[in-house]
Amino acid sequence: MKAGFAIWFTGLPRSGKTTLSKRVEEELRMQGHRIQVLDGDEVRDRLTPDLGFTREDRDENIYRISYVAKLLVQNGVVVIVAAISPYTQARAAARQDIGHLFEVYVNCPIKSCMERDYKGLYKRAILGEIPNFTGVSDPYEPPPNPEVVVDTDRESVDESVAKIMAALQNQGYLDSG
Amino acid sequence: MKAGFAIWFTGLPRSGKTTLSKRVEEELRMQGHRIQVLDGDEVRDRLTPDLGFTREDRDENIYRISYVAKLLVQNGVVVIVAAISPYTQARAAARQDIGHLFEVYVNCPIKSCMERDYKGLYKRAILGEIPNFTGVSDPYEPPPNPEVVVDTDRESVDESVAKIMAALQNQGYLDSG
Repeated sequence: MKAGFAIWFTGLPRSGKTTLSKRVEEELRMQGHRIQVLDGDEVRDRLTPDLGFTREDRDENIYRISYVAKLLVQNGVVVIVAAISPYTQARAAARQDIGHLFEVYVNCPIKSCMERDYKGLYKRAILGEIPNFTGVSDPYEPPPNPEVVVDTDRESVDESVAKIMAALQNQGYLDSG
Repeated sequence: MKAGFAIWFTGLPRSGKTTLSKRVEEELRMQGHRIQVLDGDEVRDRLTPDLGFTREDRDENIYRISYVAKLLVQNGVVVIVAAISPYTQARAAARQDIGHLFEVYVNCPIKSCMERDYKGLYKRAILGEIPNFTGVSDPYEPPPNPEVVVDTDRESVDESVAKIMAALQNQGYLDSG
């Protein structure tokens, strides 16, 4: 059977994680991979409704996501995780847990994230209406050593997707495709 | 790809769910299926450490398990769940959520379960040391319409496994094997 692995998108709110993850999903599905997207919001509804956004709760959220991702990966599924996952340590634990993890740092200056924020979440966070908001009142720790970095303020979506697909190919993740 | 489905073992504590699920796992693995066992205890450690054993918490536990089972099933995995899952309504919701579910009622009189209880959990429950213990201080609702019933007080493990495998075969679950 084809080998499973996880593609883990990390970045600030509105940096482009969900958009890119959906596009990469399409590309890989066309190549015949079994794909499962674990999107932060859906996961919070089904797996972690008890958790908030303190560091402890965020870590537990990532711990549960990585458990589910691991189960899928060890059964040959390519799992795409799109989650802010702001803490380096929690992401490192997920990497160790899952085993095969390709980290995509969705790099976007906070100013650009705010410009795209049609839901007005950053504004509400700055006004203090949303506590523990990553980038405003909570830290975001950029990955020290991601498999690929996309700069979504300077690249088109197509360019970022191409960069990710090329990195997956070059680093041997698609060999069995 | 082969179709996924879930085999859901429900029954009292010490009725034989884990033993049977491991044996069925072996049988199906030999037939070339992708298998993932979700055992109640491991799941409680990784997915639902926040939950206790009230009805509400048990329902939430089953809700999370069924989400993970669904993700695996829709990616072609045969998922084996072994969980007391005492409430009919929560099991029915899991069935609807997962879509393809084969329910195994592990039927064993409580007297026999107690005889096998080398950990002494029933004794502690009767003494009031463990609250919300299924069969003692919490109800167990037998499935009204399971795909198969095994009577583990009267059958050997081999007999119960054979019964389950035959029912899987007869009901068309192993056609793609």
